[in-house]
Amino acid sequence: MTTAVRKNDLSIPSKMKAWVLDGPEQLRLVEKPVPQPGLAEVLVRIDAVAICGTDVEIITKGLPAWIEGGLPFNKNFTPGHEYMGTVVKLGAGVDEYNIGDRVAVEIHAGCGRCERCRMGMYTSCLNYGLNYGDKNKGHRANGFTTDGGFTEYAVNHVNTLAHVPDGMSDEEATLIVTAGTAMYGLDALGGLVAGEGLVVTGPGPIGLMSVAVGKALGAQPVILTGTRDARLKLGTQLGADHVINIRSEDPVQAVKRITGGKGVQYVMECSGAPNSLNEAMDMVNRGGRICLAAFPGEPTPVDLAKLVRNNIYVYGIRGEGKSATHRAAALMAQKRFPAKLIHTHTFPLEELQTGFKYFRERIEDAIKVVIKVH
Amino acid sequence: MTTAVRKNDLSIPSKMKAWVLDGPEQLRLVEKPVPQPGLAEVLVRIDAVAICGTDVEIITKGLPAWIEGGLPFNKNFTPGHEYMGTVVKLGAGVDEYNIGDRVAVEIHAGCGRCERCRMGMYTSCLNYGLNYGDKNKGHRANGFTTDGGFTEYAVNHVNTLAHVPDGMSDEEATLIVTAGTAMYGLDALGGLVAGEGLVVTGPGPIGLMSVAVGKALGAQPVILTGTRDARLKLGTQLGADHVINIRSEDPVQAVKRITGGKGVQYVMECSGAPNSLNEAMDMVNRGGRICLAAFPGEPTPVDLAKLVRNNIYVYGIRGEGKSATHRAAALMAQKRFPAKLIHTHTFPLEELQTGFKYFRERIEDAIKVVIKVH
Amino acid sequence: MTTAVRKNDLSIPSKMKAWVLDGPEQLRLVEKPVPQPGLAEVLVRIDAVAICGTDVEIITKGLPAWIEGGLPFNKNFTPGHEYMGTVVKLGAGVDEYNIGDRVAVEIHAGCGRCERCRMGMYTSCLNYGLNYGDKNKGHRANGFTTDGGFTEYAVNHVNTLAHVPDGMSDEEATLIVTAGTAMYGLDALGGLVAGEGLVVTGPGPIGLMSVAVGKALGAQPVILTGTRDARLKLGTQLGADHVINIRSEDPVQAVKRITGGKGVQYVMECSGAPNSLNEAMDMVNRGGRICLAAFPGEPTPVDLAKLVRNNIYVYGIRGEGKSATHRAAALMAQKRFPAKLIHTHTFPLEELQTGFKYFRERIEDAIKVVIKVH
Amino acid sequence: MTTAVRKNDLSIPSKMKAWVLDGPEQLRLVEKPVPQPGLAEVLVRIDAVAICGTDVEIITKGLPAWIEGGLPFNKNFTPGHEYMGTVVKLGAGVDEYNIGDRVAVEIHAGCGRCERCRMGMYTSCLNYGLNYGDKNKGHRANGFTTDGGFTEYAVNHVNTLAHVPDGMSDEEATLIVTAGTAMYGLDALGGLVAGEGLVVTGPGPIGLMSVAVGKALGAQPVILTGTRDARLKLGTQLGADHVINIRSEDPVQAVKRITGGKGVQYVMECSGAPNSLNEAMDMVNRGGRICLAAFPGEPTPVDLAKLVRNNIYVYGIRGEGKSATHRAAALMAQKRFPAKLIHTHTFPLEELQTGFKYFRERIEDAIKVVIKVH
Repeated sequence: MTTAVRKNDLSIPSKMKAWVLDGPEQLRLVEKPVPQPGLAEVLVRIDAVAICGTDVEIITKGLPAWIEGGLPFNKNFTPGHEYMGTVVKLGAGVDEYNIGDRVAVEIHAGCGRCERCRMGMYTSCLNYGLNYGDKNKGHRANGFTTDGGFTEYAVNHVNTLAHVPDGMSDEEATLIVTAGTAMYGLDALGGLVAGEGLVVTGPGPIGLMSVAVGKALGAQPVILTGTRDARLKLGTQLGADHVINIRSEDPVQAVKRITGGKGVQYVMECSGAPNSLNEAMDMVNRGGRICLAAFPGEPTPVDLAKLVRNNIYVYGIRGEGKSATHRAAALMAQKRFPAKLIHTHTFPLEELQTGFKYFRERIEDAIKVVIKVH
Repeated sequence: MTTAVRKNDLSIPSKMKAWVLDGPEQLRLVEKPVPQPGLAEVLVRIDAVAICGTDVEIITKGLPAWIEGGLPFNKNFTPGHEYMGTVVKLGAGVDEYNIGDRVAVEIHAGCGRCERCRMGMYTSCLNYGLNYGDKNKGHRANGFTTDGGFTEYAVNHVNTLAHVPDGMSDEEATLIVTAGTAMYGLDALGGLVAGEGLVVTGPGPIGLMSVAVGKALGAQPVILTGTRDARLKLGTQLGADHVINIRSEDPVQAVKRITGGKGVQYVMECSGAPNSLNEAMDMVNRGGRICLAAFPGEPTPVDLAKLVRNNIYVYGIRGEGKSATHRAAALMAQKRFPAKLIHTHTFPLEELQTGFKYFRERIEDAIKVVIKVH
Repeated sequence: MTTAVRKNDLSIPSKMKAWVLDGPEQLRLVEKPVPQPGLAEVLVRIDAVAICGTDVEIITKGLPAWIEGGLPFNKNFTPGHEYMGTVVKLGAGVDEYNIGDRVAVEIHAGCGRCERCRMGMYTSCLNYGLNYGDKNKGHRANGFTTDGGFTEYAVNHVNTLAHVPDGMSDEEATLIVTAGTAMYGLDALGGLVAGEGLVVTGPGPIGLMSVAVGKALGAQPVILTGTRDARLKLGTQLGADHVINIRSEDPVQAVKRITGGKGVQYVMECSGAPNSLNEAMDMVNRGGRICLAAFPGEPTPVDLAKLVRNNIYVYGIRGEGKSATHRAAALMAQKRFPAKLIHTHTFPLEELQTGFKYFRERIEDAIKVVIKVH
Repeated sequence: MTTAVRKNDLSIPSKMKAWVLDGPEQLRLVEKPVPQPGLAEVLVRIDAVAICGTDVEIITKGLPAWIEGGLPFNKNFTPGHEYMGTVVKLGAGVDEYNIGDRVAVEIHAGCGRCERCRMGMYTSCLNYGLNYGDKNKGHRANGFTTDGGFTEYAVNHVNTLAHVPDGMSDEEATLIVTAGTAMYGLDALGGLVAGEGLVVTGPGPIGLMSVAVGKALGAQPVILTGTRDARLKLGTQLGADHVINIRSEDPVQAVKRITGGKGVQYVMECSGAPNSLNEAMDMVNRGGRICLAAFPGEPTPVDLAKLVRNNIYVYGIRGEGKSATHRAAALMAQKRFPAKLIHTHTFPLEELQTGFKYFRERIEDAIKVVIKVH
């Protein structure tokens, strides 16, 4: 059946194909019953799903929450969290979305009852992972603690949906949640970035979206650092005023050069490199702010004296909170930046393993590898 | 059966006595089945419930939401929202509270899925009142859109509960939600009131609790205005540094006199008097902030030019948001102010009508009239 | 001498032409000594100055601060506050600007020592107007309490300057401060407007700039209301998604229609119409926010009950605080909106009176009338 | 002359005794002319000055700003920044204080014109140290970049003064700035600490004041960690609900034990111990916040993954910003906590060196050593 035909077919089969995780690196394509949406949930027919670095972590090491909790590697779980699709069935009480609506997803549906959810900090839900059995607090993290998107259909709480604008391709729509994470980071930094200097360190998907969203909100200058010229060139296309290849120039010196010695107000750290926080502290001026959207694998020496002496605030961000996904979707609907540039490859559901290979090995400079399902 | 005996009896009967509203001013004591708690809910045995000015409005005019929605006067509804009691049964998934815990209640459980709830603004839930039938969004406003506290047992969502500290009487605990509203108002004003001047206009229960909470947080000076010396004296006992009887002295002039002409930073308007906002704008200095916790019955002339020219911010507050009730309960547990002073009268459940009469006619200077149920 | 020649001439004469105010409506062109910049000040050669509605007020009624203070009409004062020009001399300690820099101005230099200035709220300076004699607190409000821009040269504190980007015309640069006021209003509303609904009421210069800045920051939809189609058309060109002529359609109903009954999150009130705040409260959803950038001449009835019941916050704004002018200038440098569209007429300094006539009588649909000085 | 007599003598001599720093560890008592206050300044007769850990750093290593700037050790400089005294002369334009007023001091007077000062962040002034010669930006940091308090008289900008309440001893008043730093840290954490859990790590003067201010604002529980029982006992007297001697119990485990496994919302890190930030991240719950008021001497390994995964915010604080000193003084005037408990020793000006010896060697458990000057 061609995709074109399937796009208009909103009928729901009883069974579906789904990748499930049996153990580290053991993904298997199986047939599963199509799940049913409950109260405040919808059934989404998955049209496209992108591969994220966290998916690789989950597939190789298991779920972070499982690991921290000392739980065994989860079996029969379907990963994948950067998906979009079409609403095909409404659970009880849903009138926020209609059948046929195209939607992108957020990862986190908070429990709605812990201290953090009551403050609106649903990505920091204290009942994370407690959505099974008699500990059911209603939390969901799609592709993390509940089945995700490397399949044909998925159940989503209405809190994890954002409308996809008309005219946006399925592939581009998988990037809404990535842009949402960048937006959430800029919110943490205060949100008022127009006319302020912003350095983004690391030109991965979140870094590139941080450049795009920061520029869309008027940051000036927007400076991107990285090691690969192809990625930096993309950064320029997405709105960076300056790019720095740190193999050619010390990034701190480059930022000082560009800003006439003054430094910038904000840094979005998206590289996870061990010395990034120290460098970021040298890039911001006194009173500046740094958002950490990435992190090194091991504890790394940090010059805390500089942080205190310069009144620097550091914001770790988890996921895409504060409805940032909705705001990011609005900027993309207004065509403020060509997000689709970071989509490089597409494979069908059956070829997910190939997609992962391209993504992990950066074959043909792969950035966002999208699995097209319907 | 004596109260003492009943206090230790956590068994749940099948029927209970409840006041229900048949029409304007038509309260009737009936027998009803004891309700059952659902997911994320508990059953509270009501030990005490206070009468609030809004109860009088509901009983005489009907529910605000009903009126705005053009709905008929609701029948068979049990009002009462300032109650406290003992948890006697846990619904599914509840481990935040245990059977036997003493709890005070908040009014609002937001839907958890609208734009405002996702921001943590659950008292401004956009699905207010939508908790029935196929429009079930899960919203609850105890004593407003769901059955309240003028009865023996009530179901509460865990989001509407706060622990009552040991050693606090049932009667005092009914005031936690009132103090929570005052705390929410001070939050809206920025929360950092230590050393800042605060005027509270109107010595009703919320005004008096605003004095108490404001002083507990270090506001200086705290100035209370009103018309009755007995109430103002209470204000002094609760922490006011200065009280102004507006029958003897112009309140704006008095504030200027007390502050050496400078005015204050903050006003909590709790009187609902028609000219209060204009006077508040003359009490704050340039850049000051005003919280409206009360309002006149009719539109009233406001000098908006003053608001703009002096960069004044005005915050209307709805209910007791931002978990303010928990913070207020903490201050009361720490015995920061003698809230119990505003409790003046107690009646048993059967004499609710007498309680209302005392409250409405301010018989014997009644302020908080409490119905003791168990 | 032609303007082209004079543009490159940064020499400073000893005398200059200046309009001074003798009494209500009595503007007179005189010769004055060119003033000298002091510590932290520069001398600006005025290249262009726009006429603002407040100039009309000052010329007809006197300075607001004078009137409130019961002072006599100020004589020999030069009004005009929306000016831009070229730095021609640096006072002591100035290295933020160089001779030859093109600059636009803000009105307010706070005293730097009152409670509000210490908080960064310099437009709400408590020492407003205290910049003379032994009460010298260092406050300046250009064109209000110190000589302004209807002249050839003016002294400015460095805090009242913003760089004018290369390639921007003098005429357009006079609009930076107007855009700065709009930006300050959006800041007061929280600043995070991307994807949120924004109604701007009143298509005067601040209203039109609010449309432009709001759209540049991603607000969606941006709705502009007004009475004149030509102004509304300009609004569309500046970024409004919808315009409403309130002579044809009730604005509240129109906002409900456009937003599917939901209302918007934010209203910027820029009309000063008597019922605007009441209408704004019906345009925002529960928990919404309203900024007042204009006001009616007389106290006007306001339905405060709605404000409290719907948890609405109202922000009066004074001037262009929080360095909003710098952020607005950045957006304009990035060419995010064609601000110059609202510039309609130009006159030389000698014809200021004609300029005022065009502005006041809206001759040829005049919006921004600019006096070109150099 | 006895102190009592000197207290009432506001006459100003032409010469005064002052300690000056010739080189590392080379403090010398000399005679200097009494300085004269300029615009917006007053002359303070120093009545008492406390020794701070930073004084020891300055005396042994030189000024931080000098060192960072590669400047030589400053000669003829008078250190000392925790002082209080009596206003004896007013500079031009001063009416905020009167002769005879008792005042405590803040360290930082910002330039009032940089980006940070304009935001109200004057302790992060970008013109720090630029208060000499033709780079005069008006910045002052008493005892750091301008002469401080180990002398008889000092000039202070009005922005660095706070009124000392009647009835407070000179010795206690030297602690106002310490309490102000604690208050500024709690502000950075959000300020709304009532009912929230707060851990303070390190029972030095700032740690002990953080306990006191946190408890005064209603934090619950307040937990103090440290290594010396005498200090921890003081913490209890100042308001700590629990103290943990980390030599007897692992502090993270202890916090979990006390909070029923939940952790706290806030940590004030005041110890500077190398592993403190990592421990703090284990003490807060997801979404918690940490203020760093101290720091280790060397870069130290930090587990940044935890910071990102748990959405933790870390706030470095510099000095005592946001007028926190005024708010702290207000709490002390209201006698909310017995700050004077941390004052342990007093010496006359001539015996400053002995005072330093007591402070550095913690002789007789010295905490705050005060030099009584008048």
